[in-house]
Amino acid sequence: MSRRTWDAAGLRRRPANFAPLTPISFLDRAAHVFPDRMALVYGDHKETWREHALFCRRFASALRHGGVGRGDVVALLMANTPPMLAAHFAVPMAGAVLNTINTRLDVATVAYILEHCEARILIVDAEFLDTARGAIKGLAAPPRVIVHTDRTAGFSRPDGVEDFGDFVDTGDDAELADRPDDEWTPIAVNYTSGTTGRPKGVVYSHRGAYLSAVSTIVSWDVPKGAVYLWTLPLFHCNGWCMPWLLALQGGKSVCLRRVNPEAVLDLIVGEKVTHYCGAPIVHGFIRDAARKRGVVFDRPVAALIGGAPPPASLLVGMSAVGVTLTHIYGLTETYGPASICESQSHWSELDLAGQADRQGRQGVAYALQEGRTVMDPQSMQRVPTDGGTVGEIMFRGNQTMMGYLKDAEATDRAFEGGWFHTGDLAVLEADSYARIKDRSKDIIISGGENISSVEVEDILYSHPAVSAAAVVAMPDEKWGEVPVAFVELREETPASEADLIAHCRGRLAGFKCPRRVIAYVLPKTSTGKIQKNVLRDAVRSNAIDALHAG
Amino acid sequence: MSRRTWDAAGLRRRPANFAPLTPISFLDRAAHVFPDRMALVYGDHKETWREHALFCRRFASALRHGGVGRGDVVALLMANTPPMLAAHFAVPMAGAVLNTINTRLDVATVAYILEHCEARILIVDAEFLDTARGAIKGLAAPPRVIVHTDRTAGFSRPDGVEDFGDFVDTGDDAELADRPDDEWTPIAVNYTSGTTGRPKGVVYSHRGAYLSAVSTIVSWDVPKGAVYLWTLPLFHCNGWCMPWLLALQGGKSVCLRRVNPEAVLDLIVGEKVTHYCGAPIVHGFIRDAARKRGVVFDRPVAALIGGAPPPASLLVGMSAVGVTLTHIYGLTETYGPASICESQSHWSELDLAGQADRQGRQGVAYALQEGRTVMDPQSMQRVPTDGGTVGEIMFRGNQTMMGYLKDAEATDRAFEGGWFHTGDLAVLEADSYARIKDRSKDIIISGGENISSVEVEDILYSHPAVSAAAVVAMPDEKWGEVPVAFVELREETPASEADLIAHCRGRLAGFKCPRRVIAYVLPKTSTGKIQKNVLRDAVRSNAIDALHAG
Repeated sequence: MSRRTWDAAGLRRRPANFAPLTPISFLDRAAHVFPDRMALVYGDHKETWREHALFCRRFASALRHGGVGRGDVVALLMANTPPMLAAHFAVPMAGAVLNTINTRLDVATVAYILEHCEARILIVDAEFLDTARGAIKGLAAPPRVIVHTDRTAGFSRPDGVEDFGDFVDTGDDAELADRPDDEWTPIAVNYTSGTTGRPKGVVYSHRGAYLSAVSTIVSWDVPKGAVYLWTLPLFHCNGWCMPWLLALQGGKSVCLRRVNPEAVLDLIVGEKVTHYCGAPIVHGFIRDAARKRGVVFDRPVAALIGGAPPPASLLVGMSAVGVTLTHIYGLTETYGPASICESQSHWSELDLAGQADRQGRQGVAYALQEGRTVMDPQSMQRVPTDGGTVGEIMFRGNQTMMGYLKDAEATDRAFEGGWFHTGDLAVLEADSYARIKDRSKDIIISGGENISSVEVEDILYSHPAVSAAAVVAMPDEKWGEVPVAFVELREETPASEADLIAHCRGRLAGFKCPRRVIAYVLPKTSTGKIQKNVLRDAVRSNAIDALHAG
Repeated sequence: MSRRTWDAAGLRRRPANFAPLTPISFLDRAAHVFPDRMALVYGDHKETWREHALFCRRFASALRHGGVGRGDVVALLMANTPPMLAAHFAVPMAGAVLNTINTRLDVATVAYILEHCEARILIVDAEFLDTARGAIKGLAAPPRVIVHTDRTAGFSRPDGVEDFGDFVDTGDDAELADRPDDEWTPIAVNYTSGTTGRPKGVVYSHRGAYLSAVSTIVSWDVPKGAVYLWTLPLFHCNGWCMPWLLALQGGKSVCLRRVNPEAVLDLIVGEKVTHYCGAPIVHGFIRDAARKRGVVFDRPVAALIGGAPPPASLLVGMSAVGVTLTHIYGLTETYGPASICESQSHWSELDLAGQADRQGRQGVAYALQEGRTVMDPQSMQRVPTDGGTVGEIMFRGNQTMMGYLKDAEATDRAFEGGWFHTGDLAVLEADSYARIKDRSKDIIISGGENISSVEVEDILYSHPAVSAAAVVAMPDEKWGEVPVAFVELREETPASEADLIAHCRGRLAGFKCPRRVIAYVLPKTSTGKIQKNVLRDAVRSNAIDALHAG
């Protein structure tokens, strides 16, 4: 076969025909094309795209004047408020890297993250100031702390802190944004909940953020002028890249500090919300609140549901109040959702249970994710589409992280064989849709938050009474799952269930604490490995108390 | 400012996290996610995405077996039939470069194109076989000619030719597609109508084709399952990249050999068409045919209109039959449309003339085109948004060609100062929307086809009677514009208007021939340059016959 070569010099990349992909472009375009449309609303506070872009430029300029340079990390410990949204543009526009921290984490984990990513600045909501202060206490090079006082939510400015508003006012909104020379440049580092107690820093690129945002527009058919309600925390995978895609579509963000069912319902109705995302618990709240008030939304509302498959009752209940649920699946490593249960028209011929069964699967790759399959991790061969052969879900393509920060070994392992290994076990059904069978990483998903069972076990092991511990998920109507612990106790050191729960409370974020701690002789394999599947089965069949008694 | 460096090795591009952008991915995904949805329909012929993908693989394999290698050019002289659509995937899947040729061109221009791009294979519709045979006659290295016989349209297979169906059957649909190692690899070369008589080969990259397709989805809000009617010739900028975006959205192509108003109307109704594109003339046809039959479409139909601003009467007329028009602007060099007159909600408060005035502008950049502005080409400064200062429309970003094939000089000129110079003159209005004032390149747009006035003038000059010639656009109700020529004749060689038109007919594609050829003393500047503006004004004010008489 011939290999005809083309004139590489004449046809080269140049500024006229090649622009590095960066979501910063979306903000520039929004300010130009949708200047008078609302970018965000939060209580009485409103910003048009023109105003929002100016704020972001001033914010970016303030960061640069404050000594932030290319590649520096700016961390945020914030609720879903306007400054948190703005940071998604302002930080990259300063050439810096975003690090949004889960506000529910304990002090020690926040400290670890700040130290690991070498944050230069930490912007913190006054509500979380104690956590921030605790976290930076022991750091060798603590970040400069800037405090945002959310007056809309009734907070007042703490004493003796640097104020965010004053800080932004040091910037100049006439300064142009810094742009990456190369689209393969970090834009964010998001920490996983971790599987070994130590979270990993997942690094996103400008290219990946750009393509992931566009991918969601295509896969979810997000139209221009969408009105998006922030039920999903922005600290989760940069809000699944939604801040960026909303700029591209001139959409409006409805900010939300806390998911209160009544307030959420008021906002959906009052702000004419068209899109939102959340874990099953969020959708359940909305359904219940709408039912209680007899509200049916007068326009189509589309919602993504992640963290657990939507049960049939939820699909029906949401549809009755006017919400169309789409089930998605993804991880921090895939910029949030990168797999979608794409609905097929012939499913409508199925009965309700059949429809829920189809819609509850993890589905197919997002529009711009190159590949998503289920493979035998040893042979790296795709499993047959028989619905029975279990393999590992794997991704590859542009919606996959650059790698783990300062952990080349874990990165190499995660990318072995040219695919990102999720650790989740699944089958491929006849239509090539994936269905998760089990999680190999022992993750418990509670109210949309990932909990590492290993992390909780480590804390239990740190109690002198505990000689062995196993933490598994217990189904919970409200939270989806909650952690429950089984422990073997040393005879010489007695400890009650309440003692052990209190021990965890002092050392873990509240949502990670086991709901129950049950003393039990742990079932083990012949090689001594704890058989969590036995415990899970017992928990699922509500046999906890029988175990306890045993 | 610090320049913190990140671990470049650990965070490097690898197969797991980086996939070169290529529209080939869209076909793979369609076959996987939308296997049973219709990919195309043409008369009784239908193909699902599964079938279409298999056909494209067989076609690509046949090309490879036929000696086509990476970077080779496969040319097509085809109507909007299923094989023409398939070629948009099959040719790149063979590692080759698509060259779709305008079927209305004359033999000499087709010959020039085939020779210039060194086409190895020419796939030709039986209808255009004479043109193809004429074109390859004098070539030193003529391409292998393969003939598609469109039986759906009643053609029968010509004698002594290689048949397209037989050719494709030599392929193996189990062979995997070739993929570019680098997204900056040519996927297509499309020839402009040229401004000097010699068309230029505009080279598209896989990256540009991918991003342009996605850009149209975002800017035009193209949903999944769109039904697209092929009123736009596929040989225009690869059908504005629609074959690629339709795969990504699992849309259906309704093929169309010829724009016959009655047939078009039948297809829109019968196939439930939701999207189509065309020059004003196409929309006018549809409106008139719908009115005549009293048809109003029972679902929203969205249409792009290019080539000329939509007049108010057309906007109103289309809306009355159920079609929403969006005005776009672009060039071969920008992968088709890259500027869109994005509608603003407050325009609805204007009267009809006001709305048409707003919608008739060239608007703003497409979603994923980095920049589109109007600048003084000397100073490269943006003109003020005063609606009065004229500058040149310029583009930059990923929806801009790699360059002109074998013409580094023209490429450098076109990309001077980091922007692509369109040659079209415009102003920026208060809202930063562009409005074209004049075309500096002397292009006449007739029925959506660009005609170079210089090319027509060259032909007129080749007649012994003509001593000077100037060709300008004359407004035409049906075609938008038609060329009209003014000539100075040599006294010793008399020639009638009919003689000169016949001279053109023998040497130019029919649509390029001047409608009128008027003997006249051409107005000139002091330096001897013909004042085309004077001729244009005369033509616009319908003073042709007065001129003629004079």
